[in-house]
Amino acid sequence: MAGLSGAALAISGAPAFARADPLPSWNQGAARQSIIGFVTRVTSPHGTDFVPIEQRIATFDNDGTLWSEQPVYFQVVFALDRVRALAAQHPEWTDRQPFSSVLAGDGSVLARLSEKDLLEIVEATHSGMTVAQFENIVLAWMATARHPRFNRPYTDLVFQPMLELLAYLRGNGFRTFIVSGGGIEFMRPWAEKRYGIPPDQVVGSSGETAFRIAADGTPELVKLPKVEFIDDGPGKPVAINRFIGRRPILAFGNSDGDQQMLEWTAAGGGARFMALVHHTDARREWAYDRTSSVGKLDKAWDEATRRGWLVVDMKRDWGVIYPFEKQVTGRHPAGRDGG
Amino acid sequence: MAGLSGAALAISGAPAFARADPLPSWNQGAARQSIIGFVTRVTSPHGTDFVPIEQRIATFDNDGTLWSEQPVYFQVVFALDRVRALAAQHPEWTDRQPFSSVLAGDGSVLARLSEKDLLEIVEATHSGMTVAQFENIVLAWMATARHPRFNRPYTDLVFQPMLELLAYLRGNGFRTFIVSGGGIEFMRPWAEKRYGIPPDQVVGSSGETAFRIAADGTPELVKLPKVEFIDDGPGKPVAINRFIGRRPILAFGNSDGDQQMLEWTAAGGGARFMALVHHTDARREWAYDRTSSVGKLDKAWDEATRRGWLVVDMKRDWGVIYPFEKQVTGRHPAGRDGG
Ligand SMILES: [Ca+2]
Ligand SMILES: [Ca+2]
Repeated sequence: MAGLSGAALAISGAPAFARADPLPSWNQGAARQSIIGFVTRVTSPHGTDFVPIEQRIATFDNDGTLWSEQPVYFQVVFALDRVRALAAQHPEWTDRQPFSSVLAGDGSVLARLSEKDLLEIVEATHSGMTVAQFENIVLAWMATARHPRFNRPYTDLVFQPMLELLAYLRGNGFRTFIVSGGGIEFMRPWAEKRYGIPPDQVVGSSGETAFRIAADGTPELVKLPKVEFIDDGPGKPVAINRFIGRRPILAFGNSDGDQQMLEWTAAGGGARFMALVHHTDARREWAYDRTSSVGKLDKAWDEATRRGWLVVDMKRDWGVIYPFEKQVTGRHPAGRDGG
Repeated sequence: MAGLSGAALAISGAPAFARADPLPSWNQGAARQSIIGFVTRVTSPHGTDFVPIEQRIATFDNDGTLWSEQPVYFQVVFALDRVRALAAQHPEWTDRQPFSSVLAGDGSVLARLSEKDLLEIVEATHSGMTVAQFENIVLAWMATARHPRFNRPYTDLVFQPMLELLAYLRGNGFRTFIVSGGGIEFMRPWAEKRYGIPPDQVVGSSGETAFRIAADGTPELVKLPKVEFIDDGPGKPVAINRFIGRRPILAFGNSDGDQQMLEWTAAGGGARFMALVHHTDARREWAYDRTSSVGKLDKAWDEATRRGWLVVDMKRDWGVIYPFEKQVTGRHPAGRDGG
């Protein structure tokens, strides 16, 4: 309850040094207030909105909600890098679309790839190895690949305010799940270190795997070139039911792919919290919504407006976007006054 | 660490009243000793077998491991009861196999049902409603159905020694998962109350579900008449990878359907614990193994013997089988001396 007490103090105007502010990167305003108000209500034992600890389930989309997703989903960059890395073992790709376009490597290739092309590329590059080997491939890529705009590892581009929110919720008895259209096995290798979210709380899209005994007698799980489940749109409540088995009381997304997750969350009884991140800051991050090919926010935005769900305005509501900004500016959670 | 300290005291011969014995229903002997020895080793911070808390994953089969499964899997009894309950709404079942046989109701019907028949019955009786409605159907059945031999609710037939083991492991930082061939949504409604295992730690077989918006605007998850995944045999390590994302360090089963789960567990690095429940007590429970049509234990038994995995002999190793025996005999965890 330390986080809650700190938040209550910050609201009541008590000196900030009494307790560390749990959300130092969130600017003062309605977004920040509504989060703290909700958490305070559902954790107040004698309040009418109290929620028992086992029902404090929070679900978060990943791409565009917990980290950036521009100019293209980071897992797509990974998949295209894998096509190039594996090309020598696949001479047939030189004459076969969509691989030949990727290998030709002109800058416009992404714009020309269809959904079906991307699926084929993901299936080809995310299979043919054990799950343990794939984990090492992901970790090696994360350690070496650099985002072109920031020249930093992709895992540097997580959102500092959301890291604080995850920790604040967990400090108040919530369990925080990722429910993402991204691949489970692309996220799990680094999600615990970066987000504090263990593998069994990472839900996502998946490919089929098969158990087999290798020639040397070792049991293995092998990744097959076949998509098993797409955890997007109506798939999100389906996956929440399958993996979590309980309806969230808080859900956070950023695009139309999160609409059904938020609807499913909203339809439960008692206190509920539905929120969307609106990307409004072209200077520090990106600005996009209704017409974006990545993270399109259109119908879900209209529904949020109509139903009074929180829409976070990144430019207005977030004092810091990325963790590395804190180091540059010298702003530090413990050092800001008033929260 | 209370459970661990208590166990250590019990072993060292200190008075049992100093600490409650964590496994009072386990008789003195090698089975009990090997469990306590393993837990002590992996939780001793300075020992060579220490396992960090986040890696303390334990997986348990359900039917025949955590509760009884004779004379037929309890979920099959449930499904047949549902056929009878739904018959009035399905006049076509009177002339259609396998439903007509079930409705004719002679005692030998079960022996004549094939795997395919059972699948058809499960699909027909576990679909056509929302997941919330199905949960209520399961809970109502659990509250009213009685096991023919004991004339008690099926949830009375959980194994007291395994309840103690689950609690002992959790008291030592383990997370305890069910990984069962039974249906996820058949187990989840009562697993938390009975086993202390929350819905997101229940892994099992599943049917497909679909998200839809009902006529009144309410979002619903509807159960479809299509099996999605069978969590048995090689499916168990596949499901462990999909749901948990980490290899267990302890796995407990009772039949050949658990063999691959135990192999997968055994193949990890560091300290490992693999165990099978052998049903050897026809008087208090049932006795069956190599030739049983339910819970056949044959190949996995041979492998356990060969590799030195624990085989629990129910008759020898368990002082109490069911929780209700304690009440009858007056034996109570805190009241037994010496553990
Ligand atoms: Ca997103
Ligand atoms: Ca079993």
